[in-house]
Order: sequence, then structure tokens, then C-alpha cells
Amino acid sequence: MQREVNKTDFREQAKKLVAQMTLEEKITQLTDNSDGIERLGIPGFCWWNECLHGAARSGDATVFPQAIGMAATFDKKMIREIGNAVSDEVRAKYNEFRQLNGDTYRYEGIAECAPNINIFRDPRWGRGHETYGEDPYLTGAIACAYINGLQGEGKYLKVAACLKHFAVHSGPEAMRHAFSANVDDEVLFDTYLRAFEYCIRHSNIHTVMTAYNAINGEPCCTNERLMREILRDKFGFEGFVETDSGSINDIHNGFKITNSVVNSVARSLNAGCDLDIGGKFRNLKEAYERGLVTEERITEACENVYTTRCAMGCFAEDCEYDAIDYSVVRSMKHRALAKKAAADSIILLKNNGVLPIDQSKYRSIAVIGPNSNDRDVLLANYTTEPSEYTTFYKGIKEASDIPVYWEKGCELNSNSHANYRSALNAAKRADLIILVLGIAPGMEGEEGDTNDHWTIKGDKPTLNLPEVQMKLYREMIAFGKPVIVVNVSGSCVNLTEFAQSGDALLQCFYPGELGGEALGDILFGKVSPSGRLPVTFYATEDDLPPFEDYSMKNRTYRFYEGTPLYPFGYGLSYTSFAYSDIVVQNQSVSVTVTNVGARNGADAVLLYGEKDGRFELIGFEKIELTAGAAERITIEYEGRYSRFRVGFDNGTQK
Amino acid sequence: MQREVNKTDFREQAKKLVAQMTLEEKITQLTDNSDGIERLGIPGFCWWNECLHGAARSGDATVFPQAIGMAATFDKKMIREIGNAVSDEVRAKYNEFRQLNGDTYRYEGIAECAPNINIFRDPRWGRGHETYGEDPYLTGAIACAYINGLQGEGKYLKVAACLKHFAVHSGPEAMRHAFSANVDDEVLFDTYLRAFEYCIRHSNIHTVMTAYNAINGEPCCTNERLMREILRDKFGFEGFVETDSGSINDIHNGFKITNSVVNSVARSLNAGCDLDIGGKFRNLKEAYERGLVTEERITEACENVYTTRCAMGCFAEDCEYDAIDYSVVRSMKHRALAKKAAADSIILLKNNGVLPIDQSKYRSIAVIGPNSNDRDVLLANYTTEPSEYTTFYKGIKEASDIPVYWEKGCELNSNSHANYRSALNAAKRADLIILVLGIAPGMEGEEGDTNDHWTIKGDKPTLNLPEVQMKLYREMIAFGKPVIVVNVSGSCVNLTEFAQSGDALLQCFYPGELGGEALGDILFGKVSPSGRLPVTFYATEDDLPPFEDYSMKNRTYRFYEGTPLYPFGYGLSYTSFAYSDIVVQNQSVSVTVTNVGARNGADAVLLYGEKDGRFELIGFEKIELTAGAAERITIEYEGRYSRFRVGFDNGTQK
Repeated sequence: MQREVNKTDFREQAKKLVAQMTLEEKITQLTDNSDGIERLGIPGFCWWNECLHGAARSGDATVFPQAIGMAATFDKKMIREIGNAVSDEVRAKYNEFRQLNGDTYRYEGIAECAPNINIFRDPRWGRGHETYGEDPYLTGAIACAYINGLQGEGKYLKVAACLKHFAVHSGPEAMRHAFSANVDDEVLFDTYLRAFEYCIRHSNIHTVMTAYNAINGEPCCTNERLMREILRDKFGFEGFVETDSGSINDIHNGFKITNSVVNSVARSLNAGCDLDIGGKFRNLKEAYERGLVTEERITEACENVYTTRCAMGCFAEDCEYDAIDYSVVRSMKHRALAKKAAADSIILLKNNGVLPIDQSKYRSIAVIGPNSNDRDVLLANYTTEPSEYTTFYKGIKEASDIPVYWEKGCELNSNSHANYRSALNAAKRADLIILVLGIAPGMEGEEGDTNDHWTIKGDKPTLNLPEVQMKLYREMIAFGKPVIVVNVSGSCVNLTEFAQSGDALLQCFYPGELGGEALGDILFGKVSPSGRLPVTFYATEDDLPPFEDYSMKNRTYRFYEGTPLYPFGYGLSYTSFAYSDIVVQNQSVSVTVTNVGARNGADAVLLYGEKDGRFELIGFEKIELTAGAAERITIEYEGRYSRFRVGFDNGTQK
Repeated sequence: MQREVNKTDFREQAKKLVAQMTLEEKITQLTDNSDGIERLGIPGFCWWNECLHGAARSGDATVFPQAIGMAATFDKKMIREIGNAVSDEVRAKYNEFRQLNGDTYRYEGIAECAPNINIFRDPRWGRGHETYGEDPYLTGAIACAYINGLQGEGKYLKVAACLKHFAVHSGPEAMRHAFSANVDDEVLFDTYLRAFEYCIRHSNIHTVMTAYNAINGEPCCTNERLMREILRDKFGFEGFVETDSGSINDIHNGFKITNSVVNSVARSLNAGCDLDIGGKFRNLKEAYERGLVTEERITEACENVYTTRCAMGCFAEDCEYDAIDYSVVRSMKHRALAKKAAADSIILLKNNGVLPIDQSKYRSIAVIGPNSNDRDVLLANYTTEPSEYTTFYKGIKEASDIPVYWEKGCELNSNSHANYRSALNAAKRADLIILVLGIAPGMEGEEGDTNDHWTIKGDKPTLNLPEVQMKLYREMIAFGKPVIVVNVSGSCVNLTEFAQSGDALLQCFYPGELGGEALGDILFGKVSPSGRLPVTFYATEDDLPPFEDYSMKNRTYRFYEGTPLYPFGYGLSYTSFAYSDIVVQNQSVSVTVTNVGARNGADAVLLYGEKDGRFELIGFEKIELTAGAAERITIEYEGRYSRFRVGFDNGTQK
């Protein structure tokens, strides 16, 4: 593996650098804002940047679909291209900061706190949209594609990605600083750690970030079994481990397993954390003086961290990425990719023939709903504020040849009925209704990062949309005109009623800055939808286990015992694909895919394998085929499976 | 006057209708939501709609520049066209609501609570941007143009406008429900009532709304002298008087001059209020039963109100406006007008030659600042959320042939420095900097309607911009590149530093949905700036009287004793105009205006007359002239003046 070759070189370089440092100097290198060491010619360095779906929080940049939308594309090649584009923008900014400012601070560097590869175990988790969904294999495969794109394929890392949050992290947000996720080893390895292991095996990942929570009582950032036995010994990880911001304080304030910050940093370092996001590792000096940590362990941590810093070419003259110019930021190429990714992330769930829209059949269109003309539902969280964006309404209007009326109708979650009647009248005036409903990043997100009283510290209290939106929907349906419903959310919400009475239904995860253009392309048939659900869409939360229950019983397509409204992997097209000549051999499955419909389109071919009586995803490939065309593809898999299935595992057809 | 003829007819019709009503029925007609009277075939009617600068709060509509920006155009003809466009949209909506819904509620009707013709006496007043500025004549003339446009020139009123807030109303917002503005008669008539009188004499205005405050201790809505002696007897007003929303409660809760709502409604009705916005006049029934009001007065009020309802053609079959179709809403024509108005409202305050931008001189442009890419600063208050809008950045980018970078740089009023360095780098990268600073509707507005802790219940605590913006400005200036400053605000802020060290300085009042396109046209020279300041731009608030002081001493260009930074009437152009052959005769002044510069442009020719040793505005005319062209214009005036001056009264040159 490339990783090991690189690391050997860079580790030697790191060891030489660290060997010249005093104990005090080494300690200053173990927090996100690492000091410069002037006498050694080492500049300061910041280990905290964000690029979950674009260069985030550091000025203008291209905003790609939120992670859950990237997963919905089931397109590893494109996700890798997105990673490459994102890290080009990050590097260009980093290069400019260094050149113009001489130093780099938070959100200006090349050490990234992305991706988030936690399993979206429960649809109520507010941060679920930062993940690649509920399936461990999909999560690992998409994450690897993104990481490999981000890090590049050169001698050096273009940026350093990070696997977070290690491990078993998925809410509740309100309890995260003192919560213990309790799991047995079977579910731990089968569900929560699989994507971590996959990424460590299939990418050159250098960094793992611990989770806030505890596992079976032991906080992740003091969890020696997790960080040493499992991560390093079992999975073979050779990089460095960092804490999540503020985790150290949770050890004594939240979990109360130590009684001081000095004891907390000692416990964390000794258990395997190498770097602290948050700055508390500065207390290692006192911990050392009190005999709680050894210089050997501090040196080891520093070498781990410096290996990555060397791997990024920070001390090299020949790093090819140093030449990336600012002109790559928001280049036409990147924006075109953002648009394509957005279109490919949209999932068609129902279509009675109204889609694609035949404009010759209608005189005008009404685009209505609280999410129809809003910027924030394009951008999601861990984003930047881009200079330009296209809302859904705007994208539809620009794609349409006939008049398009717009009305908001109602707020996402308030009974204020201002403009409500205007929306009804727009619908009466038009003869095709596109209703854009859903929730928003302000209603599902990280602890303290949402602004809507509806949420429980970021988590969703229910899968049901606020009643004001359902009322608007029912009034629209009552007109007897075609109603296309676009649900915008980062997670499963209850779409039952739309599935029953809507003429068409699309799921749009927060699609990035060009989501509106992408939706216009889909609705009017310029692009055939090809997204698939990366999470189960339940009809109700009533039969789900308690949110705090981390066993996987009755959760996700692998273990859910009920009938979902739309299963994991579901997604319709404007055309049809047939699978034939399926051959299983040598850890791979070959299949001929034929576009048997009348339109060009793309298909995500899903390969499922049976284990313990259940089918689970073990491979996938996205393929574009013109109408009538066929192509033979081979999907490799790992592990042992007794039976195979090509095509999504429609739980409704069991 | 047309008004009287109309009113005679409509009053007869109203009397006949009211004569058929019982006392109880009449009382139900004296609040904003008037009941239907089925046995008389009279439908319900709502007297509360808003259209300060566009059809507001009722779905999609064209958003024109905020009132203060309309005043800055000094263009009566265009303001009349805007009024006509706005009322076309209001009528179209009203027609549709009646047709599709059968009834109309708040914000769906044709009785408008606009314009606001209070005098913008003190730059700290949060609602000042709803007005036409500090000058009584300008206020009256612009208001009349708008009212005449709104109401139309037909047999019926297209909509009914309303003069508010009667009278002497301009803050503080925090005290408005119990504040007494104390003024002597000289300042009352010379400043606070002049625009009311002007509009009553020069328009067919039917409605006057009382102010929340008291004058010399007597609340406006119980103020018999104000509503009878002055408004009706002295000014000849024949329409109806309505309260501001919630005023009745202020009588007993705020001013405590009565001890119950029943006593308050009796006192208000008896003093001259005919209709109550807020519904409290329903208590007139009890007031009548207790002998506090007479049926005669109730009948009179009802007739006053019904005269306007008849004048609007509510009971006519031949009202031409009933045919206005919804297609006028956001028509190309209206949007083009909104764009022109926005451009003509922008005021060039300083230009060292950098404007208009010569694109051949620069490789790229950086557009930076918290107001540079924001929607809300386009829209101001009393607005709707339009389906489309063009931010300043977007407008500049679309108008530019060279690359344009955007960075926010900082928030309007927070020390969060996220993206601050990105903005500095964008400025370093570019070789022309456009810095869009200022405040926002969330920082100056109506009591309870602003969201920024900076304000004092909507009023500005200072004329100085938040320090974070000044810091950004100073860093930009330090680069030594050309810096064009665009200040966006609805009122005077302290521009001293920009005037000193900026290369160009523009004042942009909240310009409506196409403000960005308008700014692009101005910056790149497609349109020559022609706006003029409708308020004095002071260099400091230090020598202003206390905010609560309603005497005019040391306020506005007419009475300010200091040297303003930029005086009322100030505004530069890309071309130059010369005035010649000035002839005064028969209450008019004639002047030949010549465009002596090299570019086409428009000029607002201001006529000042001297009274009591001071020059004050007595007339103005906007005129468009191609380069080299000349035109003779005649400006009529009212009143007696000893000396005249054509051209703005530059207080700095006294």
C-alpha cells in the first residue's frame, strides 16, 4: 500500500524534526493551533479546517451537495472528483494565506476535520445529514472516494482528511458531552466500526478524530481499547488520533471520571490521543511535571502528528500542490461538477407520468412552499456562504418556457399564515403545482447550531413535517391539479401522505449552491434522476427503538422489521434498466446492464450479498447508458456471502 | 378640485347605504376588519393593507426603492409612475382575492396605510427610512406624486392611500405608546403639518391615520384640535380619520388619561377618529349604551368611512380597475421601473475620477462587505419577499467584463472575524476594491421590528458604523488600491472617514429588489448618478439636540447651525449641469439647464426660496439631458419668498 511507503519516509523525517525539540516545544505541537518553533524554522500550523462538502468557513468557495446527498449519488468516481475539486480550493486558499499572510489560522489550513463517517442509525439524529447514510459499506466506499479525491494521488497529501467521530456516535445531541453508547462487540464491529476499518484499508487516511460520547462507559478520547487495540493493532492505523473540540473538558465536567483538566489530558494522551482540538493538551506540561505522562509518549504523539505534517509536504520544496492558484476557486469546472452532483443526488420516489414536465400541456406553473426559494436549504451545515447560488424556484423558472409563479405559502414551522392565501391563489392560477416542502439545517443539526425551537438541541422530535406544511399540501391536492412534491431534508421525514396522493414525489437532500439548476434539469427532463436513498424512509417513528438505544435491532434496512415507506437503495428513473447474465466468480459479480427505456440515464447498480439470512450492500457501480445501450460491468466485493442479488433490496417486496 | 366633485357623489351614496344600517351594524363598520352586512348585500372589508414601496405582505410583488430612496430621486413623474405600478399590483391581487376567495382580509384589500409623511427630524429615528426625508416641501411633493399614482386618475380610487402618522411623530420608538411630543404652533405648522396640508390640497387623499404619540400632552387619537380644528376646518380634509394599530389601548394603558377601553373609544370617536385599526371600536356599543357617544357621531363616522368605500368603486359595476389582471404583478414593465428608480435613487457623494469604472484599467475587482450580497438591505421594511432580486455583488458581477471576487469580510455588527482574512486577501488579489458597508433594516426600524441588539427598540444609538466595519475599511484603504465605498442605510450615518480617504463614495438607500443591477449600471457608467440627499448627512451626532426634543432648533438643513458632512440636496453626477437665464415671475421660476459635461445624465433642479433669512426648498424638477443638450424649465412655487436660489443649498458653502 502506498500509505505505508509514504509513511515510512515521512515518519523518518518527522522523527528527525521532533528529536530536535525540547519537551516544552513538543507539547506546543499537540493542539490544533500549534506554535511556530522559530529556532528550528518551523512555522505555526493549524490542524482545524472543515471541508465536508466544499472548502468551508473560509470565504467564497464552491458548495457541493451535503454528504448525505453525495451518498445518494452512489457514484464513487464523481465523489472522488468532488474531493479533488474541494481540496484544490482548500489548497489554493492555503497557498494564498501563506503567501499573503505568512501564517494560517483556523479554517485556513490543509488539515481537515472531514469526512463524518458515523452510521446514520436513527433518523432523528440532527447531524445525520453530515454522514453517508445508514449502511456501513456505502459509508466506507463513498468516504474512501472522497478521501482519495481530497488527499490526491501524488507524493504528498494535498490535504489531510480525517475520519470522525470514532466511534459509535449518532446522538442524542443534547446529551453528547456525557452520553455512553452501549453496544456489544458484534454490533460494534458489524455496524459502527466497519466504515472506519474500510477507510483505513482503502485510503491513505492519516487522522482519526474521537467522538464526544463514551462507549460502554469509557469516553472515546480516553478509550485505550478503542484507540490502541482496535484502531492500531486490529485495523493497522498508523496516523495520529485527535480529540473532538472540547472533548477533554467532558472527561472531568461531563463524564466526571477525572477531577481536573490535568488528569484528563494525561488520561487521554496515555490512552492514545495524540493531538487535542481545543488546546487543553497545553496542560501536558503540568501533567508531565506531576509524573502523569512520560516524555516518551509525548514524543510518540508528536512524531505521529509530524508524520502527517511531513506527508502534506509542509517541509518540502517539491510539493506539487504549492503551485495551485486561487483561480481554481469557484472555477467553471467546479461549479459544473457541483451542478451535476446535485442533479445526481436527487431521488425520484414517485411518478405517475407527470414527470418529466411536458411544457406543451400547461399554461403556467406555480412553485410554492417554504423551501422553494431559500438559500440555507441548499447549503446545509459545515459550509461557507458562497457568492452565488440558485434556489429551487429560480432554477425551475430559468428552465421553464412557460410562466412560473412563486409563493412561499407558509414558514417551515410557524402558524403565521401571512401569504398563505396568496399561495393558494397562485396554485389556482397555474395548472401545474410544484410544492417544495421539508425541513432545513436550522431544524436538524449539531448541538447548539440549529435555531428552531422545534428541535431538541438539533435532533428532530418527530419524522412528521410541521402541520402547517401538511395543511398547505392538502389544500394544494384539493385543487385537483397535478402536484409535484419536492421534499428537502437531510434525513428521512414521513412522506406517506405525499406518496399516497401526490402525482410525483422527489427527495432532495441539501444539494449545494446549484441545487435549483439541478432540480430544473430533473423536472424538465434534461437529466434523468438517478439518485438512490442512502437511508431507509420510514413511514413512522412509532416502531423505532428509543433514540438512545444503540443496538441495531429494528433499525436501518438491514435490521428493520417493519415495512418502510421507501427502502434504502430506492430511486426511480425516467428510463428503465435491465440486468442480465449475472456471473459470480473470484470475489466479484459481473452483470450486463441494459437501458431498456426510451431515455438516456444513469443507473446505480447495487450488489447485495446474503449473510446471516439478510441481504446487505457489498458493492455498487454507477453507470451512464444512452437509451438502448448496454454495458457489462464487474463489481468486486470483500467477505463471504452465500447468495447475491443485483438491484436494490426492496424491503417492501420481501 | 376633483376630490370635492367625487366626494359629493360618493358621500350621497354613502349616506344612503349607512341610513339603512342599524346602530349595531354601523359600529361593526368602524374597525379595520369590517363585517359584512348580508341583508344589505354588503361584503366584509378590510381597511388594512400596506404598500409603502410595493404591494407588501401579500405574496410575490415588485419591490421598489424604500420611501427615503424614492425621495432621493427628486423625480415626481417617476414616483407617480411607481405609485401607479404599485396600485396596479395591489388591485390585481385584490381582484383575484375577491374572485377566487370571495372575501379579503388583512393585506389583501385596497385601503392602504401608506405613505408615511412624517418629517425625518432626527437621524437616529429607526423608522426614518419609511419617510421622504427631512424637508416638508419635498415630503409633500413626493407624497403627492405617489398618492396620485396610487389612487389613479379615474372616476374611482384605484386604491385609497393614507397620510400617516398625524402628527409630530418621529420617535423614540421605545416610548411611542406614552410619549408626548412638545411643540409650539410655529414649529407645528412650519415643519410637522406642512406635508399633511400640502397633500390634502394637492391630492384626492381620503384617509389620515393618527400617530401613537401625544402632542403637548394630548394623544393624537383623542386630539380634537388636531383632528377637527386643524385637519378639517383649517386644511379642509373631508375624508375619514383612522387610528394607528393599538392606539386605543395607549389611551388608558400608556397615557392613562382614561381608565377603560370603553372610555378610550368614546374619547377617540368624539375627538374625531372615525375608524379604529385594531378592533377596539367594537366597544362603541357599550360606550353608546352608557351615554358616552351619540348615534349621530357614529353615523357621521360611518358615512365618512363609506364615502371612501364608495369612492373606491366597491359598490359600483363600472369600476375600470376591477378588470386589472394578475399578469401585471411583477411585469417586465414594473421591474424595469424598479430598476430605474433604484439607479436614480443612488447618490454619488465623492468621486476622485475612479468612477465610472474603466474596466480596461483593472484586471479584477473585489466586492467586499457585510451589505454586499444580502437580500434584506434591498427590501427594507413594509415590504414583501419577492421571488427574485439582485444583490449588489450579483449586479456588479453581471455588469463587469473582468473577474469579480466576493467576500463578506465581517458581519454588520459583530466581532466575529470569520472570513475577515479571506476578504483582505480578495482585496490583495484584485486591483479595485468596492466596499459595501452600512446598516440594515434589522438595525433601524419600527419598535419591535429590528433584530439587532445594537438598536434601541429600533432607533439607532449612534450615527457611527460599528467598529468592525471601520476596521475593515481601514485595512482596505491601507492596501493603497482604489477603494469605492457604497454605504447602504436608510438614514444618515457618519461617512466622514470615507469622505476623507475613499476614492469614491456612494449612498444607497434600501433600493428595492433590483438594487444590485442599478448599482452595476451606476458603477460602470451605463447610468449617470442623479440622486440627491433627502436628509442632511451630519458628521456627528454630538451637536444634535436630544432625540426627544421636537423643536427644530439645530436640526435639518433648514435649522442646523453646524457644518454638515454632506448637505440636504447634495449629489454628484458623471456630467455637469449649468443654470442660466433665471427668471422669476408669477409664482414661478424659469431656468435654462444645460448639460455641459461629456456624458448623458439627469439633474434634479432644486429651487430654494428665502424666508426669515433662510433658504428652503420650494420646488424641484428632474430633467434628463444628453451631453450638450439644454432645456428651459419652469418651476412653480407657493408662498412668498424674497430671494431665490437654483441649485442645492450647500450648507458647507455658507
